[in-house]
Amino acid sequence: MKKLIRCHQRIKPYIYNTPILTSRLINEIVGADLFFKCENFQRMGAFKMRGATNAIMQLTEKQKSFGVITHSSGNFAQALSLAAQSLGVKATIVMPSTAPKVKKDAVIGYGGNIIECEPTLQAREKLVQQIVVDKGATFIHPSNDLDVILGQGTACKELLESQPDLDYVFTSVGGGGLIAGTALSAHYFGNNCKVIGGEPIEADDAYRSLQSGVIEHNVTTNTIADGLKTELGDINFPIIQKYVSRIILVSEKEIVNAMRLIWERMKIVVEPSSSVALAAIIKEKHVFKNKKIGVIISGGNVDLNKLPF
Amino acid sequence: MKKLIRCHQRIKPYIYNTPILTSRLINEIVGADLFFKCENFQRMGAFKMRGATNAIMQLTEKQKSFGVITHSSGNFAQALSLAAQSLGVKATIVMPSTAPKVKKDAVIGYGGNIIECEPTLQAREKLVQQIVVDKGATFIHPSNDLDVILGQGTACKELLESQPDLDYVFTSVGGGGLIAGTALSAHYFGNNCKVIGGEPIEADDAYRSLQSGVIEHNVTTNTIADGLKTELGDINFPIIQKYVSRIILVSEKEIVNAMRLIWERMKIVVEPSSSVALAAIIKEKHVFKNKKIGVIISGGNVDLNKLPF
Repeated sequence: MKKLIRCHQRIKPYIYNTPILTSRLINEIVGADLFFKCENFQRMGAFKMRGATNAIMQLTEKQKSFGVITHSSGNFAQALSLAAQSLGVKATIVMPSTAPKVKKDAVIGYGGNIIECEPTLQAREKLVQQIVVDKGATFIHPSNDLDVILGQGTACKELLESQPDLDYVFTSVGGGGLIAGTALSAHYFGNNCKVIGGEPIEADDAYRSLQSGVIEHNVTTNTIADGLKTELGDINFPIIQKYVSRIILVSEKEIVNAMRLIWERMKIVVEPSSSVALAAIIKEKHVFKNKKIGVIISGGNVDLNKLPF
Repeated sequence: MKKLIRCHQRIKPYIYNTPILTSRLINEIVGADLFFKCENFQRMGAFKMRGATNAIMQLTEKQKSFGVITHSSGNFAQALSLAAQSLGVKATIVMPSTAPKVKKDAVIGYGGNIIECEPTLQAREKLVQQIVVDKGATFIHPSNDLDVILGQGTACKELLESQPDLDYVFTSVGGGGLIAGTALSAHYFGNNCKVIGGEPIEADDAYRSLQSGVIEHNVTTNTIADGLKTELGDINFPIIQKYVSRIILVSEKEIVNAMRLIWERMKIVVEPSSSVALAAIIKEKHVFKNKKIGVIISGGNVDLNKLPF
């Protein structure tokens, strides 16, 4: 609890306390009161800014002087670049050579230094390891890192400061950093507030991991929710096991329908990954009737040329 | 001035005081400080809710008992339906039989009663006239009506209450109701605040009307900004002549680019019509360097199946 409070205090000057929106129509559809914590309005457009900032700020001055490094072709690549830039630290991002140009441009725009690798897990890990050894840079994992997890948890902390009596908070589940941090915040700052994850059927590693009790791997990652293709790690999984109530699986169609609902009715741009949480609520809305539910909208970085509508 | 204050007081319980958003990146691109008044978050998704509400509230109880009527296939059809529903009044909307189903469904969803007509000006006006005579319903024009104009002006009034030192306020120009109301509010509540309109080259009636001094007609209406195909009227034109500084014309490409910028950077869903105001600022950004500029985002009702990206 103290760790979360100190983390929030630490990163506050570098992040936005994002707005919480509501929609009368979506409440009618679901039959419950929903409070959307809009991290699509966060700096660089996603919650990942929180964890990246906290992780860098926890380094010693000496560590900072050698820079930070991560592997990601998604929001964490941009988050670490911008957080590092804000804190005067150098960031190196290892990206597969096949990553879209728009993603590379975004990282460069935030001051990150891209090093390309072959698009295999082995090539990536070898290259990261080499740079850590050669340059002394500190590796920061996008989701399986306690400082990252605590940072991500501050979104739920802000949500509960505004809405202390939430019965549930929903997030999507990808690498597990967001839901683990959210679950910690709900446990320490909520009033008997349960945390539930939404996960695509097409990338259901977390759902199966909770069932089997060991970290399972994705069989497919054929989902539009491209932020959720990653897998749980040994640091966030025990937290999820202990503090997350359950995970609800949703289909691709349910994800797109929820995304359309948010865009059309709330007039905000959200990623497919963000819509998975609402899709999960809608899928089992009979269970959540008349409840007060927080929903973490994880981000708003979409490629407008590749919309599912 | 008193009319605007009373109008605002009157409609306040029925409308939202919509948020004002800023974007560091768009400010950098333009080289000025922009304040976006987000009427896409207004009830039913557009500023038209303000004027429709005010116009109905100005009727006598007897007039209200006979209902209101308008012709529109756009946002005003929905706005009058929802405003009437909120005030316990019956609304009839005359729509061309060719109007898209999604527009008809929206009107029905807000409790409006649709009567279809042949898609010609003559058929429409004849039918409206007939219903006015037969049912005693009061006709409310979407833009050429002083009570509608005053209602639309309250968005700029709220903007200036939050940002009193704006040098300029930009709106798009369609039927002229929004810009006329905005110009009145800027005149009475601004501190030497000028109002400028953005208009598509493809529907440039207002631009040419200001030049010639008489109401000109559109030669084409081949624009993506479907809310701006309508023309000025004899009530709003004199206000625009007196209080609007100038109109800047923009191309279809400039409209889509501005729309993309708002969606990608501000993460909000806005109509093409809304983007015309920002397109106008960007087009002449050298003129507006370092100025404080308000921008009325008129609405967010888009057909996600027909995006220009």
